[in-house]
Amino acid sequence: MESAGRSRVGIPQPPGVQEQPDSAAAQPPRSLAGAAPDAAMGDSAQEEQSLLLAAAYVYDAQYNRNIPFDTSPRAVRLYYLYNHWTMQAATYFFIFVDLALALFEEPAVYLLPFLVTSLTEVLCLLVFFGRLFHFAQVTPRDVFWKDTKNICIMITILMTLVDLIVFGALRISSIRGVRWSRPLRPIFLINFAESRQIRRAFRSIRNTLPEITYVFLLFMFSVLMFSLMALKLFGDRNLKTVEGLPYFSNYLEIVFDMYVLVTTANSPDVMMPAYDFSWWYCLFFIVYVIINTYIFMSVFLAVVYNNYRKHLKNEIRKLAYMKRRKMIEAFNLLKVKEEAEFVVKEDRWKRLVKLVAPDISTSHRELLLRICDEEQKGFVDKKSFVRLADLLNIQVITMKLHSHPLEVWIHQVYNSAPSLLLRKMVQHKVFVWMYDVIILINAVFIALDEENPLISYAEWVFLSLYIVEILLKLYTYEPRTFFARNQFWNWFDTSIILAALIATVLNTTLKSVTVYNSQQVLDIVFILRVLRLIRIIDSIQRFRVIMTTLINIVPTMLTFGGLALVVYYVFSIIGMEIFHGRVQFFGGNSTVQHALYCGNPALKDTTFARAKYCKNNFNDIASSFVVLMELTVVNQWHVLANGFALVTHEAAKLYFITFHIVVVIMIIK
Amino acid sequence: MESAGRSRVGIPQPPGVQEQPDSAAAQPPRSLAGAAPDAAMGDSAQEEQSLLLAAAYVYDAQYNRNIPFDTSPRAVRLYYLYNHWTMQAATYFFIFVDLALALFEEPAVYLLPFLVTSLTEVLCLLVFFGRLFHFAQVTPRDVFWKDTKNICIMITILMTLVDLIVFGALRISSIRGVRWSRPLRPIFLINFAESRQIRRAFRSIRNTLPEITYVFLLFMFSVLMFSLMALKLFGDRNLKTVEGLPYFSNYLEIVFDMYVLVTTANSPDVMMPAYDFSWWYCLFFIVYVIINTYIFMSVFLAVVYNNYRKHLKNEIRKLAYMKRRKMIEAFNLLKVKEEAEFVVKEDRWKRLVKLVAPDISTSHRELLLRICDEEQKGFVDKKSFVRLADLLNIQVITMKLHSHPLEVWIHQVYNSAPSLLLRKMVQHKVFVWMYDVIILINAVFIALDEENPLISYAEWVFLSLYIVEILLKLYTYEPRTFFARNQFWNWFDTSIILAALIATVLNTTLKSVTVYNSQQVLDIVFILRVLRLIRIIDSIQRFRVIMTTLINIVPTMLTFGGLALVVYYVFSIIGMEIFHGRVQFFGGNSTVQHALYCGNPALKDTTFARAKYCKNNFNDIASSFVVLMELTVVNQWHVLANGFALVTHEAAKLYFITFHIVVVIMIIK
Repeated sequence: MESAGRSRVGIPQPPGVQEQPDSAAAQPPRSLAGAAPDAAMGDSAQEEQSLLLAAAYVYDAQYNRNIPFDTSPRAVRLYYLYNHWTMQAATYFFIFVDLALALFEEPAVYLLPFLVTSLTEVLCLLVFFGRLFHFAQVTPRDVFWKDTKNICIMITILMTLVDLIVFGALRISSIRGVRWSRPLRPIFLINFAESRQIRRAFRSIRNTLPEITYVFLLFMFSVLMFSLMALKLFGDRNLKTVEGLPYFSNYLEIVFDMYVLVTTANSPDVMMPAYDFSWWYCLFFIVYVIINTYIFMSVFLAVVYNNYRKHLKNEIRKLAYMKRRKMIEAFNLLKVKEEAEFVVKEDRWKRLVKLVAPDISTSHRELLLRICDEEQKGFVDKKSFVRLADLLNIQVITMKLHSHPLEVWIHQVYNSAPSLLLRKMVQHKVFVWMYDVIILINAVFIALDEENPLISYAEWVFLSLYIVEILLKLYTYEPRTFFARNQFWNWFDTSIILAALIATVLNTTLKSVTVYNSQQVLDIVFILRVLRLIRIIDSIQRFRVIMTTLINIVPTMLTFGGLALVVYYVFSIIGMEIFHGRVQFFGGNSTVQHALYCGNPALKDTTFARAKYCKNNFNDIASSFVVLMELTVVNQWHVLANGFALVTHEAAKLYFITFHIVVVIMIIK
Repeated sequence: MESAGRSRVGIPQPPGVQEQPDSAAAQPPRSLAGAAPDAAMGDSAQEEQSLLLAAAYVYDAQYNRNIPFDTSPRAVRLYYLYNHWTMQAATYFFIFVDLALALFEEPAVYLLPFLVTSLTEVLCLLVFFGRLFHFAQVTPRDVFWKDTKNICIMITILMTLVDLIVFGALRISSIRGVRWSRPLRPIFLINFAESRQIRRAFRSIRNTLPEITYVFLLFMFSVLMFSLMALKLFGDRNLKTVEGLPYFSNYLEIVFDMYVLVTTANSPDVMMPAYDFSWWYCLFFIVYVIINTYIFMSVFLAVVYNNYRKHLKNEIRKLAYMKRRKMIEAFNLLKVKEEAEFVVKEDRWKRLVKLVAPDISTSHRELLLRICDEEQKGFVDKKSFVRLADLLNIQVITMKLHSHPLEVWIHQVYNSAPSLLLRKMVQHKVFVWMYDVIILINAVFIALDEENPLISYAEWVFLSLYIVEILLKLYTYEPRTFFARNQFWNWFDTSIILAALIATVLNTTLKSVTVYNSQQVLDIVFILRVLRLIRIIDSIQRFRVIMTTLINIVPTMLTFGGLALVVYYVFSIIGMEIFHGRVQFFGGNSTVQHALYCGNPALKDTTFARAKYCKNNFNDIASSFVVLMELTVVNQWHVLANGFALVTHEAAKLYFITFHIVVVIMIIK
């Protein structure tokens, strides 16, 4: 496999040239490298090859991708395939199939036979292995084996296979095994090269960890000290909690209660018995909350923020350096000598841009060329060439002045006096205001009771009014402009109204055909009906600005969502192994006794059972996610922790404390 | 009163010179102003006067104080008196007396006769008026009347007097009046010139308010929309809450519940009935929390942060400008012409510094002179002079190498071989480690039970060990160095040990003399005993760094504390007027029935009464502060709000919602 032309991306050379380890400083014109493309001009395949390689460099620079790849013709072609969107989409698809298996494996939301899930998992593993093998063909061998990501994936694949085999064997011999490799699945999501954002978030957490740890230790020391004081102050007073249990008498329980107080989840209940005993004791708790919740939290935030800023600066500097280096490599591949300086000829430059960004228009490409070759000399110099990666990232909105299709088809009617008047009306401010008033009236009607037949009739009126509005707008404005990419509200409006129309028609049909009133469809109708009201925001300029800010936050939220998915998945799987079946939810058709204790006598007379938390359990991955969401919100988490500790062991609280710490770190990051 | 010499600080001139309104641009050497001090050199009183005025400018520049004052000799002398620390301390003292009156007025923690409290209040008002009158003598009349701060104080004094008279008259005729002027008292704390930091915080909040309002409106819109959806989705399902009440059937109650959910205080309880009904409904609440708690909170923070940064930049720029201007005014007062440039002579400079900072040492002053007059020309030029205000703010630690007093007194014994060995031992690392081990053993002993006589004996052993440690250290290290200002831990150690010694002795004496075991003293002994353990932090370098950060946060916390005091005070007084006496706490000696409902049948079977929150009431200012603290911590605030709404009116919830909004704004500021 190893050929002479192979070299790392940092030090690439035109193929066929002998390896020169010190050629990273590619600044001085190397006669060999510089001459190679020229000399090979006749050889069109050679030319094509270096163009392909240069395009790969530019593409990587444009998207800040830092994958070292081989420069042999075969590797470059494989690299193109590797980066093709179908391959990436397939990888993501199989990662999500792998993760989604938890829905169908015992304890399942919808149970599938073990054979089906295990075969699917093997298929996923095969795909992952194939993807990794493909990557190994693209990247130099020593780089591949030095990258912990690849090792990590391989070990995970291996461990999962071993686990599957052992579990299957145990299953055949009717022994209940533990699928211990399942929490490892998110490793695929993190470690495949596509998930750069999530990996960066993890790296940033890892960088902050050492400094956070010291603050955390000091914080824990403070909690332990206060707990000791609490033991001494309240331990011998024979006080009772609201539930009649002894108050602050066991050191470990005090530490847990004081930790919960930091999250403020048991305030003010934990204070009340002492406060009832003596007014002065409230000072103890107030000082505790001020120090351990407010002051320590601000120190945490300060540490994280400083660290984050420091590392961000490094990361950005490194990215900029890598980008520049890749662009210089691309330049070196394409350059020819022109009057004492090396340049890239115009036609070659155009072919490169066509390769890198096939879907940009000819006019756009001409515009880019005019920027890069300002003096229209017919070539691009090095300085301008390097800027190309950033130029390609600038979104150019092509304003095409289409004329309205109706104008083309029925010119005379469309431009007749009544039509012109109608179009003027729709464009007038009063038209918008009128519909704002309609929305407000609609809001009042929605709030009123549904049973009244007049109101359900009104609903049809409103729906038709909205449809008329959209049709009028489509008549007045050019449809392609109306549904342009950046017209968020038009898209929003039309889809909500269309969905509402479909759902309402469906609901009415179902009502008239069957006696059964479909709950799901009705719910959707309700939600869509209310969502329609959101449109009123669009009329107020200040709100529109804030909404744009909100929409801009979405990408950050997605990275955060990926991070949360990983954490939730791991904790869910572990939680299901520990707590599965310990707490049961019985619907309305169960005996009262069972429902009262969530099917577990250990929960008798606990806050958990009294608050009817039975459905907060780890009996399948969907329920687990809901419980973890509740834990993320923090409120009442001690009730959940205590409940699950009662049905298993006191040590189960550690699971909840760990989750809380992980979530806090995740959120403040 | 108005004399020719009077002018504002922005445009000051040497006294006796005719007013020149355009002299603010004092840059070009004005022959008159420049010559005046020179010509009056013989007139020592005149000279003294301009030095005094210059010193006032420098002092103001050093502490960033921006009080415009008259430049007449009498006004300058009054200005010195106005800024004297005793006057400032007296003002603060009377402000706190005025605020503390709430402790003694009905509803009181300790009731004093109305005559006493009202006379004290009148006395405070007189003091405030006197202070204001003093200020009016210092500052130019038109500036005084333009300043809203002064107007505010005067109106408040007047209103309080009116209120006092009306209330007193009503009282004599046995009609129960309302002391409505009491919530105005914090105005004195905010508006006297001394509370610059708190005022700045308020200003910064006021600046952010307009932008926050828009985000808040959008947020409320979102809450209202979700509430409408909730009404439609869950309203007709006949679901019941845990308490058996109808679930989500009244729109206003839904809005309140949804607002509470934003603060996460009723999560997951508010979700459970819908979640039990159908799994899918949990998505509604999860989406709600993600949008309204997490996303909106980050938008809030972003808006506040951007605004804060913008205004901070302006404020800092303005401060720097004012400082420079004041220094230039001072320079103009003292300058003489020396070789084509104006300078300040060395002896005059020294007298100025002596006036501005009387307590710095001669060597420190010489050092400053060497910095200002680098080339030792015998004078200070303008550029160096302007820097003086900043130079004075630099803390210079004078390292005096005192020899140990014992070395002076008993030289031979102190330097004898055993003494040297002892000193070497104390300075050794092992000595520190040994005491760390002792602290750890001590911690174990503290955690053990108190009843054991052996352990109470051990307590004496530990106490003596700690005292021996301090004595040994004082023997080895020079006491003045040991107790230097920056030796936080030495101070901490010694005071804790001394306090523990006194408290333990007191406790033992009380025990042996009376049978009564004083609870307060014992509590203090416990707390001091645990506080001793904190010392172990000092042994770990990383912890010491974090502790320094924590201690550095204190000044910011104090400003925040002042802000919180103002908010708490206003809400407490209002809360007492509304809720006073509605909820009663009965100690152990009351009938069970009464204790169960907190003395109010409206609270029967409520979460408030069941959680035994009776002591969370507004029956005196101390209790009110505790309730407001609990509301600040947010958890369970809806239980408190519901409780107080039940004993008064549903509208009482507005009080709690308003407090929550104010606190959120205060905290995120």
